[in-house]
Amino acid sequence: MGAGAGILERLRETLGSDVAIDPSTLDLTRHLKDYGTTDDQPDACILAVVLARTTDQVSAALKLCSEASVAVVPQGGMSGLAGGGAPIGPCVVLSVERMRAIETLDEAGQTITVEGGVVLETIQKAAAERGFFFPLDVGARGSAQAAGLAATNAGGNRVLRYGMMRDLILGLEVVLMDGTVITALNTMIKNNAGYDLKQLFIGSEGTLGVITRLVLRLHPAPAATCTGLAACADYAAVLDLLDQCRRGFGSGLSAFECMWADFYSLGCEPCGRTPPLAHGHGFYVLIETQGADPGGEVARFEAVIGAALEAGVVQDAVVASSQRETAALWAIRDTPGDYSRVFDPAVHFDVSLPVGRIGVFAEECRRRLEARWPGVAAVFFGHVADSNLHIGVRLEAGRIVTRDVKDLVYGCIGDLGGSISAEHGIGIDKRDYLHHSRSPQEIALMRRLKAALDPAELLNPGKVL
Amino acid sequence: MGAGAGILERLRETLGSDVAIDPSTLDLTRHLKDYGTTDDQPDACILAVVLARTTDQVSAALKLCSEASVAVVPQGGMSGLAGGGAPIGPCVVLSVERMRAIETLDEAGQTITVEGGVVLETIQKAAAERGFFFPLDVGARGSAQAAGLAATNAGGNRVLRYGMMRDLILGLEVVLMDGTVITALNTMIKNNAGYDLKQLFIGSEGTLGVITRLVLRLHPAPAATCTGLAACADYAAVLDLLDQCRRGFGSGLSAFECMWADFYSLGCEPCGRTPPLAHGHGFYVLIETQGADPGGEVARFEAVIGAALEAGVVQDAVVASSQRETAALWAIRDTPGDYSRVFDPAVHFDVSLPVGRIGVFAEECRRRLEARWPGVAAVFFGHVADSNLHIGVRLEAGRIVTRDVKDLVYGCIGDLGGSISAEHGIGIDKRDYLHHSRSPQEIALMRRLKAALDPAELLNPGKVL
Repeated sequence: MGAGAGILERLRETLGSDVAIDPSTLDLTRHLKDYGTTDDQPDACILAVVLARTTDQVSAALKLCSEASVAVVPQGGMSGLAGGGAPIGPCVVLSVERMRAIETLDEAGQTITVEGGVVLETIQKAAAERGFFFPLDVGARGSAQAAGLAATNAGGNRVLRYGMMRDLILGLEVVLMDGTVITALNTMIKNNAGYDLKQLFIGSEGTLGVITRLVLRLHPAPAATCTGLAACADYAAVLDLLDQCRRGFGSGLSAFECMWADFYSLGCEPCGRTPPLAHGHGFYVLIETQGADPGGEVARFEAVIGAALEAGVVQDAVVASSQRETAALWAIRDTPGDYSRVFDPAVHFDVSLPVGRIGVFAEECRRRLEARWPGVAAVFFGHVADSNLHIGVRLEAGRIVTRDVKDLVYGCIGDLGGSISAEHGIGIDKRDYLHHSRSPQEIALMRRLKAALDPAELLNPGKVL
Repeated sequence: MGAGAGILERLRETLGSDVAIDPSTLDLTRHLKDYGTTDDQPDACILAVVLARTTDQVSAALKLCSEASVAVVPQGGMSGLAGGGAPIGPCVVLSVERMRAIETLDEAGQTITVEGGVVLETIQKAAAERGFFFPLDVGARGSAQAAGLAATNAGGNRVLRYGMMRDLILGLEVVLMDGTVITALNTMIKNNAGYDLKQLFIGSEGTLGVITRLVLRLHPAPAATCTGLAACADYAAVLDLLDQCRRGFGSGLSAFECMWADFYSLGCEPCGRTPPLAHGHGFYVLIETQGADPGGEVARFEAVIGAALEAGVVQDAVVASSQRETAALWAIRDTPGDYSRVFDPAVHFDVSLPVGRIGVFAEECRRRLEARWPGVAAVFFGHVADSNLHIGVRLEAGRIVTRDVKDLVYGCIGDLGGSISAEHGIGIDKRDYLHHSRSPQEIALMRRLKAALDPAELLNPGKVL
């Protein structure tokens, strides 16, 4: 009998069989791996699935597992893309998906307090119903849960203006592996009373504690949105355009999505779309602004883009004049949603680099890929104003395999001083490459923090570190 | 001989007598207490003053003190207002004030990399010279140093739009008490490669590590600024006005400074100023917007304030039409700079509460003060959109003393669910009151982190915890 012998029974005694569920009675598919991760963990063995309804139940489950030295894997919507929720070895799976109450919405404070299992789309809708805006948005909005978004410090399309999940969290309730409940549901923008403990748990991918409740920041709903597409000759021109947009729109600039020509080409005809701007330019940039003044927004948008055209920074441009045209521009940017049809099998990357160095990195990375695999298909696009680049590289059975591509791309990131993870986290998938972006001293300090909070390494073992 | 015997000699051997300075050769006044803190620490005994020129020297000093079990007190500009830099007991004082290089300014990335001793005003000027804007601003801009601003997570007037110091830091270099140098000079907005270690050190007031270098975020210089003053009848109207400003200006709203009538009265005639709006209203709000469009900014400002006037939310208003008028409005808000002439002796508070509850808190706090000390003089003002309230209470020898006022105000904060420190931190001054704002579990977790990073409790002992 291994370490987990009897844990199901002990959990059921305390929590009941409706909360501590016998895995043999469940279809475990959705608990075995994250959406989009490549490999199953061959040694995964789920001893129990705990679907908690309260923070106290989370605490009781963690305490029992601590005492029995059984590993616990916290799971959210399983859309993290890095394998952070995948079970490894014998373990108890713990989810707060049943904790989905929206507790309060404070209009004066512009905050919403939610349980950890509330799905992103539900938060967005609850805010909108009261005239507010929860700006975080990712493709998995229908499945990603608040606790998981916090644990992975999710990003998305609107980071440029509103920040990442970290910037939208004011307070957290977290349960440590020993069962201690830390209720730090701060609702104030300014609060310097001691260490800001929540920061430790945001982005640590469930390795330091389990998030059960959150206080999130809301913004007023934007009154006007403008969208356009601009073509530039080279990355230097993209940087000039970015500077003009930052100065011309100030904090109204809400998206600056840069597509290299190869990505743009893939997103047009192969996906059945008419190109809104002709092929042949080096770069295509989707620009969005969100403003408070419906009267002035369009004129301002056209003035700034017009000036960039006149200055020769932009070679051609189109401004969307309807909801349909706006959607058509975003559809090209959202080509990754069509990858299964037009770019499969492939391996995908989420990396970051200093904004000014992204163009050079893309050239160097492409050069190394081509030198290694002549004719390789690779596409580049990203939220470059946020320093974030996404890369897709097509695999070819027997010639171009995942591991080799990862080694090459992450090696290139390390050489050029970038980060191997911009927004998806480390999970299992990038763990072996962490040293490309973090020094031995940094990794040692992470381990010191892990040891302080979870000395027996029972919480989400094998992830990040 | 105590714990510190011989430490000066050991430091001098390694660092030289120019860096490890014999305290008997110095005027120690500026090292003995923070500006504005009330009490000297009677047992303070400075064994050496280390004025490091490099990170390696900081590391060597901390390592030697660790080995000798001697406490180290990191000091910045000594303008933290909470006693965080004051020596307690026998200790070595450590400053990075000689580390004042501006290393790089990256225009595309909108970052500036500086050494920890660079003074705030120098950073602001270096940014402005290149067409950028470093938005953090506090009264002590001529003395506050980058490392200290980070260690205390400084706030100030523009938090509403640009965030606190934490929101303006992308990367840090920190030295731990054992001498380990953690160089985490991230320059990317998005970087989810492992734990975000810098967060631990920001706002921990020098108790977990010594900050030596920083990567800070810059913004484009705003093209247009508008300033006005509006009078409201009551706090409910202030909240309505805030809602209209948030929706009308969006992210352009850069200041919303609320002054209760008592504060406004003190700031006008007693300070030799003509009131820009008549006395007799309940509240006066200084509103500032910063926009990217010089052509549209004033019209937009007047339209939003005009609508609030028409709706009866605002009773009277004035919009500054010159630099001189703008300065005159801010002068009233900056009355605390005149306190030594018009409101002295007094005890001052920096607290926070949920925005919607600040009005009720002010009433309740005033009621308790008046019940205890009939006729007491108290003034209220604050960055209320940031949840931040400042209170001044006049002392009277023999009748109204600091300790009793603190007990009353912090007790009231605890009862109404606020924080005893919005932006100034805990230091020595608020340490005994921390339990009003943080739970035993939170404080225990802070201690656990402290033990993980500084097990012998040698770094800035007696602060925060």
